[in-house]
Amino acid sequence: MKQIQNKNFRRQFSPDRQYLIAVSGGRDSVALLHWLIDCGYKKLIVCHLNHQLRSRASSADARFVEELAGKYHIGLAIESANVRAIAVKKKLSIETAGREARYKFFASVAKRTKCSSIFLAHHADDVVETFLINLFRGSGTTGLAAMREVSNRRLDGVDLTIVRPFLGMWRNEIDHFVRAHRLKFREDASNRNLAPLRNRIRHRVIPYLEKALGRNIRQAIWRAGVIASEEEAWIETQLPNSIDAELSPAKMRGLPIALQRRQILNWLRTQNISNVGFDVVENVRALLDHKSQVAKVNLPQDRHVRRRAKKIFIE
Amino acid sequence: MKQIQNKNFRRQFSPDRQYLIAVSGGRDSVALLHWLIDCGYKKLIVCHLNHQLRSRASSADARFVEELAGKYHIGLAIESANVRAIAVKKKLSIETAGREARYKFFASVAKRTKCSSIFLAHHADDVVETFLINLFRGSGTTGLAAMREVSNRRLDGVDLTIVRPFLGMWRNEIDHFVRAHRLKFREDASNRNLAPLRNRIRHRVIPYLEKALGRNIRQAIWRAGVIASEEEAWIETQLPNSIDAELSPAKMRGLPIALQRRQILNWLRTQNISNVGFDVVENVRALLDHKSQVAKVNLPQDRHVRRRAKKIFIE
Repeated sequence: MKQIQNKNFRRQFSPDRQYLIAVSGGRDSVALLHWLIDCGYKKLIVCHLNHQLRSRASSADARFVEELAGKYHIGLAIESANVRAIAVKKKLSIETAGREARYKFFASVAKRTKCSSIFLAHHADDVVETFLINLFRGSGTTGLAAMREVSNRRLDGVDLTIVRPFLGMWRNEIDHFVRAHRLKFREDASNRNLAPLRNRIRHRVIPYLEKALGRNIRQAIWRAGVIASEEEAWIETQLPNSIDAELSPAKMRGLPIALQRRQILNWLRTQNISNVGFDVVENVRALLDHKSQVAKVNLPQDRHVRRRAKKIFIE
Repeated sequence: MKQIQNKNFRRQFSPDRQYLIAVSGGRDSVALLHWLIDCGYKKLIVCHLNHQLRSRASSADARFVEELAGKYHIGLAIESANVRAIAVKKKLSIETAGREARYKFFASVAKRTKCSSIFLAHHADDVVETFLINLFRGSGTTGLAAMREVSNRRLDGVDLTIVRPFLGMWRNEIDHFVRAHRLKFREDASNRNLAPLRNRIRHRVIPYLEKALGRNIRQAIWRAGVIASEEEAWIETQLPNSIDAELSPAKMRGLPIALQRRQILNWLRTQNISNVGFDVVENVRALLDHKSQVAKVNLPQDRHVRRRAKKIFIE
């Protein structure tokens, strides 16, 4: 909360300007909304995407958010998406499909309202859980980089500025705030999109680790994530600027291994291949070796990376 | 094991040359010794430091290693150090004091024998355990970088080349090798210097995590450590070369945050301050801000970082 009262923050994100805020109806986003209002952010537009994952309960969440926006006399954008159908169609997990649908929705609201900054309620415990999930899944260092307090993302022709004022706050601090202000929220909404792995990490693994090790490991993990994200941000500035549709193995071989990995990851992202693990990056890196016998790497959704005629490309 | 049979490895570390090898008498180092002999490394000098932590058992370890060297007809260097007394005197943990004493001993043998490359038996499970220990302790990214297969360390005027051929091998692969060759080893020796935290990570935390998450997390963590170490190696090449006894806040402020951290850590190391956590680095970094009220940061062993007259120094 201190962050929002912080002078630098208020200078960068003046309360007089208009902002979007993502509100699921769960505790964290309800707390963020209340806090921003309290701090004088009046021109907010509440964005709520009904994921249609729990039929009646999902509709009740949407109604709750609608009433909340009415109570605060602020703008509202509500939409529905059949996240389960998207997940099946795009062969994605429910969690990933939900996230993609939300960002698409945010971008469309941003375009319509000409308001490109959006507040999200991610907090410090989210950082810790995401770090562990990515560590255990094997995402490599890039996966260990924490979300940033302020980041930019280009989506459907819109440059979204994503702002997470709670990123340094712990869940129990938010709890305390919610109780102190007797805020009402939808109990299920915050856990609606919780993947089984995140659920287990939050409710079983982290409590176990803190007990077994007799120390507050969350602070330490949070820091590791923040450091990794600052190193990532800096490494990104050191990468060759333009990314072509094809990779040149000859040029890539001239980079240090650490940069080859980042560059491959960035290249895959610009080709709309995201959510790939360390394995895929290493397999693509192996293609750089002209002596390598392998000339094909499998990607999700039946796509492939191929090497042919001294070029690496996707088909 | 494949590593030692690997052509590149044998080209870089020819079996015809002389090497030191650290042998505690425990399973891992006994396996490494046997394997090297098997692969034609004949001019080895076994280095064993008696840590005197378990009196009679420690002496029995030393005798066991002596006999082993005799059996293989190779050189031997044995010495004793009162690790407990060193720990008390230098206010270090037993684990850290033991490691420092061992490296000092290795450097002295290297100087005497004019042989500066030493084989150590660290394996992939060691990498995973160390990663988690540093993560939970809060060492930041630098602490997450895995040990390297080949690294250099200057100590007491000797440039040691540290070689870890087992770094990509898992404990159960070594177990298998030891059983297949019916190698005898000292059961306790390998766990002698096991700190309580490492012990808990090895025997409780990792098995729990693999069960709770239903996946082999060790491979993923090993990769994260290896990636972090390659990024660290590269970042190190980007740092200003010379490190003075004093830090200039003005110059430091010009670096990106990620490099400020690395530079502070390197600076502390050249001033013989090691084993500091992320806290200390961040506190020193706060001194760079000329508006900061604080001008002193406490270090271990009653030393301090101070800022005075636009200089940061240790006293």
